[in-house]
Amino acid sequence: MLPSILCSPSSSSTSLFPFNYFTLYSPSSSLTNLPSLTYKTTIKKSTHNHSTRVQAMIEKETPVTQRPYTFLRESDEGGAEGSSSNANSVRARFEKMIREVQDSVCTALEEVDGGGKFKEDVWSRPGGGGGISRVLQDGNVFEKAGVNVSVVYGVMPPEAYRAARPVDNGNVKPGPIPFFAAGVSSVLHPKNPFAPTVHFNYRYFETDAPNDAPGAPRQWWFGGGTDLTPAYIFEEDVKHFHSVQKGACDKFDASFYPRFKKWCDDYFYIKHRGERRGLGGIFFDDLNDYDQEMLLSFSTECANSVIPAYIPIVEKRKDTPFTDEHKAWQQLRRGRYVEFNLVYDRGTTFGLKTGGRIESILVSLPLTARWEYDHQPVEGSEEWKLLDACINPKEWLH
Amino acid sequence: MLPSILCSPSSSSTSLFPFNYFTLYSPSSSLTNLPSLTYKTTIKKSTHNHSTRVQAMIEKETPVTQRPYTFLRESDEGGAEGSSSNANSVRARFEKMIREVQDSVCTALEEVDGGGKFKEDVWSRPGGGGGISRVLQDGNVFEKAGVNVSVVYGVMPPEAYRAARPVDNGNVKPGPIPFFAAGVSSVLHPKNPFAPTVHFNYRYFETDAPNDAPGAPRQWWFGGGTDLTPAYIFEEDVKHFHSVQKGACDKFDASFYPRFKKWCDDYFYIKHRGERRGLGGIFFDDLNDYDQEMLLSFSTECANSVIPAYIPIVEKRKDTPFTDEHKAWQQLRRGRYVEFNLVYDRGTTFGLKTGGRIESILVSLPLTARWEYDHQPVEGSEEWKLLDACINPKEWLH
Repeated sequence: MLPSILCSPSSSSTSLFPFNYFTLYSPSSSLTNLPSLTYKTTIKKSTHNHSTRVQAMIEKETPVTQRPYTFLRESDEGGAEGSSSNANSVRARFEKMIREVQDSVCTALEEVDGGGKFKEDVWSRPGGGGGISRVLQDGNVFEKAGVNVSVVYGVMPPEAYRAARPVDNGNVKPGPIPFFAAGVSSVLHPKNPFAPTVHFNYRYFETDAPNDAPGAPRQWWFGGGTDLTPAYIFEEDVKHFHSVQKGACDKFDASFYPRFKKWCDDYFYIKHRGERRGLGGIFFDDLNDYDQEMLLSFSTECANSVIPAYIPIVEKRKDTPFTDEHKAWQQLRRGRYVEFNLVYDRGTTFGLKTGGRIESILVSLPLTARWEYDHQPVEGSEEWKLLDACINPKEWLH
Repeated sequence: MLPSILCSPSSSSTSLFPFNYFTLYSPSSSLTNLPSLTYKTTIKKSTHNHSTRVQAMIEKETPVTQRPYTFLRESDEGGAEGSSSNANSVRARFEKMIREVQDSVCTALEEVDGGGKFKEDVWSRPGGGGGISRVLQDGNVFEKAGVNVSVVYGVMPPEAYRAARPVDNGNVKPGPIPFFAAGVSSVLHPKNPFAPTVHFNYRYFETDAPNDAPGAPRQWWFGGGTDLTPAYIFEEDVKHFHSVQKGACDKFDASFYPRFKKWCDDYFYIKHRGERRGLGGIFFDDLNDYDQEMLLSFSTECANSVIPAYIPIVEKRKDTPFTDEHKAWQQLRRGRYVEFNLVYDRGTTFGLKTGGRIESILVSLPLTARWEYDHQPVEGSEEWKLLDACINPKEWLH
């Protein structure tokens, strides 16, 4: 019933499921390992006879009780089987970075919320990798806040690899390509309609050489972004948010902010509405045409900019008085958020169709959302101004 | 940014946008006619430079002030240019039927609601066809009730036509295939968590011979169904609903109910959840291997069965007292409804991507919906029983 999906290398992920580069496939029996809820209760599943045209599934995750020091395979982490230099590998340092970001963001959010606490779920996959989901739900300030990290070891079809980065030697016919991917993803939905939603996601992707062509080149790239989705515009807030993004970018390359700002406006486009999900920020993907260390530093800088970009805004707006009408408009915009994430977001749609951890993927959805038939804000109203800025993206910094 | 979609002939539509058989395409300039909201206000659109990989768009609709006697082209309706026999054509009779069903259902719903009134929007498309959307929002009984009819004249790629019904003569290389499609679609969401949501959709599809191969065979088929989505199970209600569906089926063919009941369970499957949207009913598509008159009668019988199948249930449950917990569970199930419609429903996803009338397509979404992280009903609870029945479809009639 599902359309087959084979993501192009330019596909992008912004959901809490940060890996979407390829239609993963597994030559093992995990192909039949369809996603299922891990019910504490005992509802037995019917055997469902849908034709499974999905070309890949991710291994089913297993809940674990304690978060491990690392989700890397031993051979990757400089432990028993690894060399000590592996501890300094980009994958090891990237995992360390995203876990530190998860910790610092969660700490900052609990402090702002002044009541809500994050619930943590940790899981691992038999073939290596795993993740930590943290969710704060129905707090004082946040309706729903999810901050996830995950590490995935997978195998992708050689066609995808070749499509991604053509191998110079056309004679090489690689087999399945092992890959590594790691990322942090977060969506924060506050209760107050004047406090904006924010989303960020930073990820690193690396392929091994194909198993049967060990001489073929490895590949790596970085992707990510941070974007703001208010229901009402406070220009000072939007400017502050964008200026922090620009500041992070400018430390590395003056071309980054204008380029990634536009990329963000283009990516978060709800095509059927002709409008963007929100007021943007920065977004980039498949970034590998710079020095690898520089891009690791850049990703780290961006991820560390989330707190200074966002927390002052939510602090300022969390207690602003509002009416039922303000709340209803926020809920309508939340409906747009749902539409974008379920219809367009590559990470979400890929995750849903390949058997990622559903509750982690869909924690990006707001606690509540609303759809009114043919709602049209009055010209010149605050709601109209927001919609206008979603339809016609603005340059916030001059 | 969008994956290209080319629906197979087995694709199915259940949304309020009943036409999804093919990736429509138009050789005219309407290809660039991206969907846009018809704002009463004057927000100017930015020119958006997304690559448009969608292979087809539907012509932009124009609001009209009065509903016409028919949406058929003159040549189809036995009018000025048509022959009088056209008034008895299947397309003419099908349009008459769906418009009568729209009227009778809306009348019955307003009566049950005892307050809410339907708002009507009528539109037409320059190349022929059009539709009537009727929405009752925030009534006494119904949170949101949409009942739409539409008639589409379009052109589809010859590949789709050939895939649909292989042409015996392999030498025929047809050009674009003109087609006709008409349908009624409806989703009714009551407020009371004990009153179930119902959806129905009946549609008729017909191709002309290709313009450059007038001798090639015409094709036609019928599709549709009616299905029930409660948040709580009252067995007598579900049995009543299914028995009315079975009654309609049994008048025509004893194999219909078991076959279409299973088809319904299979279609409304939320794959990433491993559960169905609701408790089913009947669903069929691409039906053309019976007498055409018989199938027209059968579709009519099914559409006319909506009122006796549903109205007694909503009458019985609309005033049942409920708690906040009951409401929250209904809202969670509404979230599942949104997930199915935006992620899987062929009609919705097709409509969104080809430029159908957005407000008509998305009127199927509930007024409000909810997503809680990792919600799991207590074993044996009423919520658990509903979930169990969505995971393991039951035979309601014995």
